[in-house]
Amino acid sequence: MADRQVLILEAAVRVIARSGVRGLRVEELAAEADVSTALIYYHFKDRAGLIRRTLDFISARATGYTDEAHSSAQDPRALLLQLLLGELQDTARVRENSIAWGELRASAKFDDDLRETLARSTRTWCRDTADSVADAQAAGLADLRADPEDVAARLTALVEGLSERWHSGSLTVERARALLSGAVDAELGRRPDEPV
Amino acid sequence: MADRQVLILEAAVRVIARSGVRGLRVEELAAEADVSTALIYYHFKDRAGLIRRTLDFISARATGYTDEAHSSAQDPRALLLQLLLGELQDTARVRENSIAWGELRASAKFDDDLRETLARSTRTWCRDTADSVADAQAAGLADLRADPEDVAARLTALVEGLSERWHSGSLTVERARALLSGAVDAELGRRPDEPV
Repeated sequence: MADRQVLILEAAVRVIARSGVRGLRVEELAAEADVSTALIYYHFKDRAGLIRRTLDFISARATGYTDEAHSSAQDPRALLLQLLLGELQDTARVRENSIAWGELRASAKFDDDLRETLARSTRTWCRDTADSVADAQAAGLADLRADPEDVAARLTALVEGLSERWHSGSLTVERARALLSGAVDAELGRRPDEPV
Repeated sequence: MADRQVLILEAAVRVIARSGVRGLRVEELAAEADVSTALIYYHFKDRAGLIRRTLDFISARATGYTDEAHSSAQDPRALLLQLLLGELQDTARVRENSIAWGELRASAKFDDDLRETLARSTRTWCRDTADSVADAQAAGLADLRADPEDVAARLTALVEGLSERWHSGSLTVERARALLSGAVDAELGRRPDEPV
């Protein structure tokens, strides 16, 4: 992707995180990204195209920061936990991404065009998470009775639910992380190598 | 509460569920409720007051339809499950309530005034759910190692996460209900009286 497009998409995430998707105007975005509105229309055709591409960009960025988990986790179960906790970090980048994702999901209720893009991203996330659950089972680090797809659907939906509470001020990020970590234990059973 | 106020609040939930909280205009609401805008301002002072009262109304209504669970559940664990599943029913009333609640939660990210009202409703819901978990434990129907507050925070956040996926078209309501039921089993352990 051209640098200019990345700049525009990064600015779109910031604007959405700050004032909501319904507050996203092409003029405001142009000012934030320091480009002309014509350039935005050239690359993204219209507002709907821009919003769809922003959703894809947010998903890709989330994969980016979860890649860090892959390089640091010591085993498949630790990796699963770190991948999920990656979404609940109090850094500007994760917070922005997470608020913008929630905003786009909220908008999808009233926008059929966005629903399909969102459903696709959600499916990919669930599938990747289910693979991690199955890897943890294969390594002997998770209860074999757990159904990877069900567990993945629940843990990712819980990440979204906890994120919403975090961003709307009902929960601190530390409490959200502790609750998520407890959910992994409840779903997979305690680690067999963990002291009781 | 006066009948007229209830009518207005019911109409507000419908409008928010249909076009989002940012789409709620007092003129549109007046038309929906078939009252004058002056009457709305008389009862609710301003748009912020109206939105705050609508959030309280949604919480109260949710308590109303979960009251049905109290009359039909056979034991404390079944009651807990029915209370949670009460939020995931494909009826116009529950769907409207749930979409509007999600909308108000999403708006709270950008509206400090709403945050406190929302946090209060969320705390009440979590506390009631934690009481149900403790009741299930006292009846010997749930693992005593489960922490009622943690379990309640997770299950209610999961209800919100699953509701969002349901309303944004990533999940059917049947699948959401099955996932939620599985989460209760993962958190509390299987019922001791259930055949393996």
